[in-house]
Amino acid sequence: MIEPVVLKGFRDSLPKDEIPKKRIIRKLEDVFSSYGFVPIDTPVLEYTKILLGKGGGETDKQIFRFEDNGGRDVAMRFDLTVPFARFLAAHHDEVGIPFKRYHINKVWRGENPQKGRYREFIQCDFDIVGADNAESDYEILSMMYHSFSALGIDGYTFHISHRGLFSTFLDNIGLKDKSVDILRTVDKLRKIGEDEVRTQLAGITGDEEKAEAVIKYITAGDGSSFPDTLSKLAELSGGANEASRRMEEIYALLEAGGIASAFVFDPSITRGLDYYTGIVYETFLDRIPSLGSVCSGGRYNNLASLYTKEELPGVGSSIGLDRLMAGLEELKSPLLASISSADVLVVHKDSETAQAIKAAEELRRNGIRTDIYLNPDAKMKKIYSYAEMKAIPYMLTFSDTMTLKDLRTRETREYQSIAEMIKDIKVD
Amino acid sequence: MIEPVVLKGFRDSLPKDEIPKKRIIRKLEDVFSSYGFVPIDTPVLEYTKILLGKGGGETDKQIFRFEDNGGRDVAMRFDLTVPFARFLAAHHDEVGIPFKRYHINKVWRGENPQKGRYREFIQCDFDIVGADNAESDYEILSMMYHSFSALGIDGYTFHISHRGLFSTFLDNIGLKDKSVDILRTVDKLRKIGEDEVRTQLAGITGDEEKAEAVIKYITAGDGSSFPDTLSKLAELSGGANEASRRMEEIYALLEAGGIASAFVFDPSITRGLDYYTGIVYETFLDRIPSLGSVCSGGRYNNLASLYTKEELPGVGSSIGLDRLMAGLEELKSPLLASISSADVLVVHKDSETAQAIKAAEELRRNGIRTDIYLNPDAKMKKIYSYAEMKAIPYMLTFSDTMTLKDLRTRETREYQSIAEMIKDIKVD
Repeated sequence: MIEPVVLKGFRDSLPKDEIPKKRIIRKLEDVFSSYGFVPIDTPVLEYTKILLGKGGGETDKQIFRFEDNGGRDVAMRFDLTVPFARFLAAHHDEVGIPFKRYHINKVWRGENPQKGRYREFIQCDFDIVGADNAESDYEILSMMYHSFSALGIDGYTFHISHRGLFSTFLDNIGLKDKSVDILRTVDKLRKIGEDEVRTQLAGITGDEEKAEAVIKYITAGDGSSFPDTLSKLAELSGGANEASRRMEEIYALLEAGGIASAFVFDPSITRGLDYYTGIVYETFLDRIPSLGSVCSGGRYNNLASLYTKEELPGVGSSIGLDRLMAGLEELKSPLLASISSADVLVVHKDSETAQAIKAAEELRRNGIRTDIYLNPDAKMKKIYSYAEMKAIPYMLTFSDTMTLKDLRTRETREYQSIAEMIKDIKVD
Repeated sequence: MIEPVVLKGFRDSLPKDEIPKKRIIRKLEDVFSSYGFVPIDTPVLEYTKILLGKGGGETDKQIFRFEDNGGRDVAMRFDLTVPFARFLAAHHDEVGIPFKRYHINKVWRGENPQKGRYREFIQCDFDIVGADNAESDYEILSMMYHSFSALGIDGYTFHISHRGLFSTFLDNIGLKDKSVDILRTVDKLRKIGEDEVRTQLAGITGDEEKAEAVIKYITAGDGSSFPDTLSKLAELSGGANEASRRMEEIYALLEAGGIASAFVFDPSITRGLDYYTGIVYETFLDRIPSLGSVCSGGRYNNLASLYTKEELPGVGSSIGLDRLMAGLEELKSPLLASISSADVLVVHKDSETAQAIKAAEELRRNGIRTDIYLNPDAKMKKIYSYAEMKAIPYMLTFSDTMTLKDLRTRETREYQSIAEMIKDIKVD
């Protein structure tokens, strides 16, 4: 006997998890499609040199990499961004620019599994490539808003900032050459707190006043409205500039779209050392900020530069589906609660099989999900436990008439026809 | 510059392929759900010993197998059946028996890529585990019928047979001990033809009369009705027996369900050396039989015996999605033809951005997929080519009024409000 175990950091998705996951993905796909975004997919396995082209040391260690039977150095994708860059370099002529795509699928990282972190997880990316203006920035932000809204999530805030504005500020106070270290430190604010960031910044800059100036910049959003924060930051950066004007335009569009109240200007958001050059953002659930960002991204200058000379600026966002689902579970979201496998369970004796099949087909034709209990000799106790386990709300049995029992209220009613019965079936 | 290539036997899925693929998968999921089937997923990577437990030499050579960073011998799944067996052994108490599940996802095989065969492809499996009767056999057949019907495929035939009946026949003519070789040979009938099968059978049995008896058995369905074929086969097997009675019951249910005409009794179907013990079936598109079976499966006795002592008989089927899509393409199915990324393309000047965004939002709220063209300075020729590439049927522009142009007919009409416009938008 072989023990039926999965690898460390991997897990099975049971129906109670897979049903809501598929429901969430469908809702997201519907939102993305409503914006004219189209789906793509790429191979799970790629040449390692393609995947690691832009990767740093951390990625190298985490990747599932091996030599295939043909002696090729291959690896499993660790995100959906690098394969998208390679895809664009190969296909930009065929897909039409600007290209608006989404990609929802699994990625793999060999990092040490922690609570809520797995070696196999789903990313949900959407990007616009081939446009660099406030309107395309806005479009991605609007999709984020309408995605969270479609999922019926109660309370979320998009924290937005601009990497170019931060760079202008650092340049203005003479810290441009230290920006890599400063970005890395500021990115840890939520984790290590303001005091520790101040200490580290003083160490990097060798100047307590400048460290304080950076702290003043990254906390300028606290308790301040979006336009007020923007004014403060422009001033700290030496006056209005290209980046601050872009943020003004974006805010005007957020207002025109009626969604500005869900966005805060949070200059502490930097997205660390990632390749972003324009707006950057993270998303927090208001009631569980400790969960971390469930949707992040930003604008990048030239995504596919490793694989093509074609200049392809873009802006995109990525929803961490597994983390979002962990959050929804903590919030007891109804999205995760309704996991019934069917609306009606048909229970019949051996002699009633043909009748049961016909009744089930008629119910299905009318959009009622109908499961037939397949062991006619089973005891009723076993059948009830089956219905409960699968959260099926109705049971249909046969005698001279048909009896429909609502298993939630235990009420029963007799019917002469399925047509008559359908009107009384109430499901979510 | 790194050349943006994919590995041999792998391919990108462009929107023109991914849009219909997702549409087909949704339709299948809706059919499966209507029967009370629930989705599961399993890890792409598993311990090699789990995946190869039941595999033969062929599988061993084809598998993507490697040592992970923790020194574990791991492999990528090569089908969805073995992971399902492992899943059942681990979770049968949690999911409730009988368990009706579907699983649509990718699998990987390192076989040499041929026309229409890839190293990465999608399987679409649905199984009932924990029931062994004609009704559960029928349920899977009924789902196959309703799946193909939901996809609007024009002309398909399910070829069904029974492995137990064939075994009884071989036993009856004294060939039971040669059944492995005979099965392997009969399975090649479509490929090598009747004469070659006859020659090979004579070689295996050392008896031309017996070889002829086998030929008579496997061709008994030619031009004969389901009940007539069944009678002939029962007679050749020494009279009515358990297997022939099961086939009788199944046929009665196919008739009760009104779908019998899509099924032929084809005793040449054996599914080779697979683990089937009861009914077996393959599905052919009437207009392109050379494509091979697009949906196959059967009944097995004890799926998870390698991993648990629990007896879990089952019946299931698998749709080869990539092959089916190749067939639909050859048949010029409308399912593959309509690949528009949006219903309306909003085109606006820079000064009209806020108006364009509001119009787009209102269209989306009314279920109209709306793409905004994001480069306001582009020439009209470029915009038309964008709309054509993405098969968008309508273009909306602004002046004092709003102008909607049907790009298919080139007709235009003016509107004062979106509400008014919506009534005129006709999309598939």
